Amino acid sequence: MEAESTLEATTLAVDWGSTNRRVFVLAADGTVLETAQDDRGILAMDGSGFAAEAASMRGRWGDLPMLCAGMVGSNRGWVDAGYVSAPASLAAIAAAVHWVEPGHTAIVPGVSRDGNGRADIMRGEEVQLLGAAAAGLVAADSWLCQPGTHAKWARLKGGDLVDFTTAMTGEIFAQLGRSGLLADGLDGTVQDGADFRAGVQAARGGDLLARLFGARASLVLGKRDRTDQASYVSGLLIGSDCAARLDSDFADARADGVDVLASPALGNLYLAALDELGCAARLVDSHAAFLAGITQIWSLLK
Amino acid sequence: MEAESTLEATTLAVDWGSTNRRVFVLAADGTVLETAQDDRGILAMDGSGFAAEAASMRGRWGDLPMLCAGMVGSNRGWVDAGYVSAPASLAAIAAAVHWVEPGHTAIVPGVSRDGNGRADIMRGEEVQLLGAAAAGLVAADSWLCQPGTHAKWARLKGGDLVDFTTAMTGEIFAQLGRSGLLADGLDGTVQDGADFRAGVQAARGGDLLARLFGARASLVLGKRDRTDQASYVSGLLIGSDCAARLDSDFADARADGVDVLASPALGNLYLAALDELGCAARLVDSHAAFLAGITQIWSLLK
Repeated sequence: MEAESTLEATTLAVDWGSTNRRVFVLAADGTVLETAQDDRGILAMDGSGFAAEAASMRGRWGDLPMLCAGMVGSNRGWVDAGYVSAPASLAAIAAAVHWVEPGHTAIVPGVSRDGNGRADIMRGEEVQLLGAAAAGLVAADSWLCQPGTHAKWARLKGGDLVDFTTAMTGEIFAQLGRSGLLADGLDGTVQDGADFRAGVQAARGGDLLARLFGARASLVLGKRDRTDQASYVSGLLIGSDCAARLDSDFADARADGVDVLASPALGNLYLAALDELGCAARLVDSHAAFLAGITQIWSLLK
Repeated sequence: MEAESTLEATTLAVDWGSTNRRVFVLAADGTVLETAQDDRGILAMDGSGFAAEAASMRGRWGDLPMLCAGMVGSNRGWVDAGYVSAPASLAAIAAAVHWVEPGHTAIVPGVSRDGNGRADIMRGEEVQLLGAAAAGLVAADSWLCQPGTHAKWARLKGGDLVDFTTAMTGEIFAQLGRSGLLADGLDGTVQDGADFRAGVQAARGGDLLARLFGARASLVLGKRDRTDQASYVSGLLIGSDCAARLDSDFADARADGVDVLASPALGNLYLAALDELGCAARLVDSHAAFLAGITQIWSLLK
């Protein structure tokens, strides 16, 4: 028999969100031996059954130490893992993990910020954000954006997460598409192009509530084709998000550029909006960032 | 028998909206002899049955001429009565009414505006707006606001409707309360007070998407009581609407004041928000304004 250069699995890292769950089976040196994604997010758990799920994962991949991040650590998850206050480092997060079973099963806390008249929270995104810097995927001082249902915008300095802002961009788009005045046409394909960019430009004035109604009026008056409506409204929302950021706490990102942690489909829309607003941006691999972050936290726990 | 000073019914004026219908039985001099309100709005009609509904009203109040306004004239109503372009006068609207049955049943058209990069439409509100000026309830040159699901802001000059903007304020609040991240707490009572006004102030920066998420974060971090959440979020939305208007096409309303056509409950929230933003405002009776407008249009038809 030939010798195989196999690596042994030593850790299970679980990105356990509201809707999806992604398991990474890791070797001691951080190599990913296997990944699996399913829809066993916390909403599918119905607030219980987490221990059985963990046992099931260990039944499949071995009785390994398990480090979980994401909404699994919320008050609707396995256990409320609390929040670390920003500025936050990977070391501070590692020091605050919640041990479900000491040395065997841990949950990463979220990060909160409060001050200057506003409060904000994240849970799960911090692993990606800090991991991106730890892995050298972004500079230690950088401006990051994670588009999504609740889009996160984060400032890193010296590799630490010093401040962040969350916008309801994706959720509002989903709600408008489900029912109400604007639903007609929002089932169409969203793509970068003249309509998307017209939406971004219309968003610049900061008058989202009126621009949204105007999108409907344009359809009724025959000023826009129904097939272009989803792109325009997406441009309005993503443009509102990006423009508000560049007008406030992300003002200096215009000079430095923004790193967008996202899948290409959604990430490229943010790149287009930022480009339309005169800000350079580039895509960063969000899975690689998560892996780097969770591996780093695990190494700090040992 | 004593002689009674009774007036004879001569016209039926119908404010026929999406959800509600209000009938005014009028004498020749405009006196309201009777009013009736029900939930036979156009959504209850399911796109048909309008002729039967009209016959039913005439069966109750007499075979009188009938003038209808509102969503009954939309493409989901009895018949699409089209739009008159702003600037629009009562005379222009009267000249463009759609006769379902000549001399007997008419539907008032809506008003559209298009230019300077935005399109907008209204249907039904124009009767109130122009009626308010015709009746002297507001000055011939004035700034008007009609709060609601789709809040209208209109500029009158010389008694004509010269321009307007619609904001999705009420609909977004309703959608956020129905489902999603912010629904928790939005079933509470909305009232003017410290939380409502804090929402108005937070809205000033024009960053609604982030402020909405921040409202949830404040609740999670224990920075706001659940019972105050609806007032704060309402303040955010109404404040966003008012601030955007005062920062753009309604900038001169700061000096002149705004006339708010609304029921006291909703109207007073807009008065509070405008006050918080340094703009004087007062309530105007919207039913009286509608009556004045519809009576005037009818007199121009005869």
